[in-house]
Amino acid sequence: MISTKLTELLGIDHPVVCAPMGSVSGAELTTAVTRAGGLGLVGVSYGDAAFIDEHVARAARGGGVWGVGCVMFTFDERPGLWDKVLGYAPPVIALSFGDAEQVRRYTASAAQSGAHVIVQVHDTEQAAVALQAGASALVAQGSEAGGHHKDRATLPLVPAVVDLAQGVVPVVVAGGVADGRGLAAALALGADGVMMGTRFAVTEESMGTAGFKASLVSAATADTVDTRAFDVVRGIPWDEVYRARSVGNAFTREWTGRDAELAALRAEVEPGWAAAVARDDTAQRALFAGEVIDLVQDVRPAASVVRDTVTDAETILRKLAGSLTSPR
Amino acid sequence: MISTKLTELLGIDHPVVCAPMGSVSGAELTTAVTRAGGLGLVGVSYGDAAFIDEHVARAARGGGVWGVGCVMFTFDERPGLWDKVLGYAPPVIALSFGDAEQVRRYTASAAQSGAHVIVQVHDTEQAAVALQAGASALVAQGSEAGGHHKDRATLPLVPAVVDLAQGVVPVVVAGGVADGRGLAAALALGADGVMMGTRFAVTEESMGTAGFKASLVSAATADTVDTRAFDVVRGIPWDEVYRARSVGNAFTREWTGRDAELAALRAEVEPGWAAAVARDDTAQRALFAGEVIDLVQDVRPAASVVRDTVTDAETILRKLAGSLTSPR
Repeated sequence: MISTKLTELLGIDHPVVCAPMGSVSGAELTTAVTRAGGLGLVGVSYGDAAFIDEHVARAARGGGVWGVGCVMFTFDERPGLWDKVLGYAPPVIALSFGDAEQVRRYTASAAQSGAHVIVQVHDTEQAAVALQAGASALVAQGSEAGGHHKDRATLPLVPAVVDLAQGVVPVVVAGGVADGRGLAAALALGADGVMMGTRFAVTEESMGTAGFKASLVSAATADTVDTRAFDVVRGIPWDEVYRARSVGNAFTREWTGRDAELAALRAEVEPGWAAAVARDDTAQRALFAGEVIDLVQDVRPAASVVRDTVTDAETILRKLAGSLTSPR
Repeated sequence: MISTKLTELLGIDHPVVCAPMGSVSGAELTTAVTRAGGLGLVGVSYGDAAFIDEHVARAARGGGVWGVGCVMFTFDERPGLWDKVLGYAPPVIALSFGDAEQVRRYTASAAQSGAHVIVQVHDTEQAAVALQAGASALVAQGSEAGGHHKDRATLPLVPAVVDLAQGVVPVVVAGGVADGRGLAAALALGADGVMMGTRFAVTEESMGTAGFKASLVSAATADTVDTRAFDVVRGIPWDEVYRARSVGNAFTREWTGRDAELAALRAEVEPGWAAAVARDDTAQRALFAGEVIDLVQDVRPAASVVRDTVTDAETILRKLAGSLTSPR
């Protein structure tokens, strides 16, 4: 067993968190990860009320230590949704992608509900804001993450955030982790656990479509591209500092780097694009994937991901410590 | 002591390599790192014959396990320089930045000289080429490195390269490492050592100027910028896939993103720029630094960097293994 400040804080068995991915992390994946001893998080970021009433409700019925992940800026645009989420009393609330005022406001509100509040940060400035806002834990997410991320890479970001957290607030590593090697490395950097997205997106319990999962299994990191095209076509007002990594396809080849043009043509382009997405057309749909995609080569049960990540990390750490020798 | 495939291959005490940084890694730094039990590498990349006859000669006289680092494409443009380097019989030759043909040719030539050949790679495709060329070891360098790098981040790149090397060829992690946490993480990822640039650039023995060292000590990662401006003004024909990270200054603010314009104006701009560099004007000179710069806050002796990196990594690995518990 790997016991860390994170497992102690949350009362979970394993320091392994499933990222709250929109359209991927539904109730089934959340419950599977939680039952395996990790932390499952429903991705309600783009969810409407019906999604919450289905998936958050089912995750709540599943019990254990589960949570929700909320993209702060989208909640600000949807009155009532936040209170609806709080109504299900999630034991953990993960917050991401908000400015300093939003971080303070949502952290305070989530904490008042009795939840543990995990705030995702992408640089040391954001880490300082989240710590001051009273976050229970931080997720330090690097640029190698799939979906949305900022520009700093994980390996040097994590120790800098760990130094700011001063051993008091647990730090979870996100971006670039897909197996026990990544968990062992995260612990070596002084962090307290890992959040994996891409690896859990390609599991049996993931809500990802068949086309999405097959695309990620066959893709290599070299096939991925940083793009804002999917955000622009969907009309989601992401701050431009956040890009999204997707497996490249016909849509990214056509539109990446043409944000203004796509925004202007959105009324014309979006309906056909949405129809293609509805029929799971992988040449058109977002295929969000992190740089770890080289390491993700099968669709597996989520519980096996949790178990193998932990046992592999344990094996690595025991072996490394055992290989240390006294000076000659 | 941390014993790995790298230390066994090279016969060194510690799996810590000093990056062969141009204008930074001279004989003094190389010898200091080698004497401390790591691997020192003279950065002869932009060196002329006089530099080699001074610094490579002095490193050779220093003895022990030392080496040189050569940027392949620049050697192709300087007939005689490669043979001059080989003439000093470096026990280790590190090769970087060449196409597949150059990797094969320089690896073969270096191996024939009797040297261990370490080839730096930035993605899995380059790793496959280097392995096929017969490299003795690989350096897997991520995008968080200072100076020149490609686009893939270290944390997910390393396990993918380790998988390709199949436990036979040692893998050294570069980009994002500045302390014992980074070394422990590298070992956890399955690698066999670390190459540090920025941390060794800010040591007493570094050839870096006073202005350069002071700028790096005071800079934060948020102050750095990816730029090609210094390469363009110097007229060095770097492939555009390689960018360079520098602490931002007046020169990067003026010229980053204006490569073609700067190239066209080079005859006009370069003399004044070179004069400013000659007087160590930090507003104009390159201040190459990696994303680890947040973690580098003092100018120290290189030997203390080697020693602390290793002892801190040992402490971390012993503590992590000791904290593992049996299942409840």
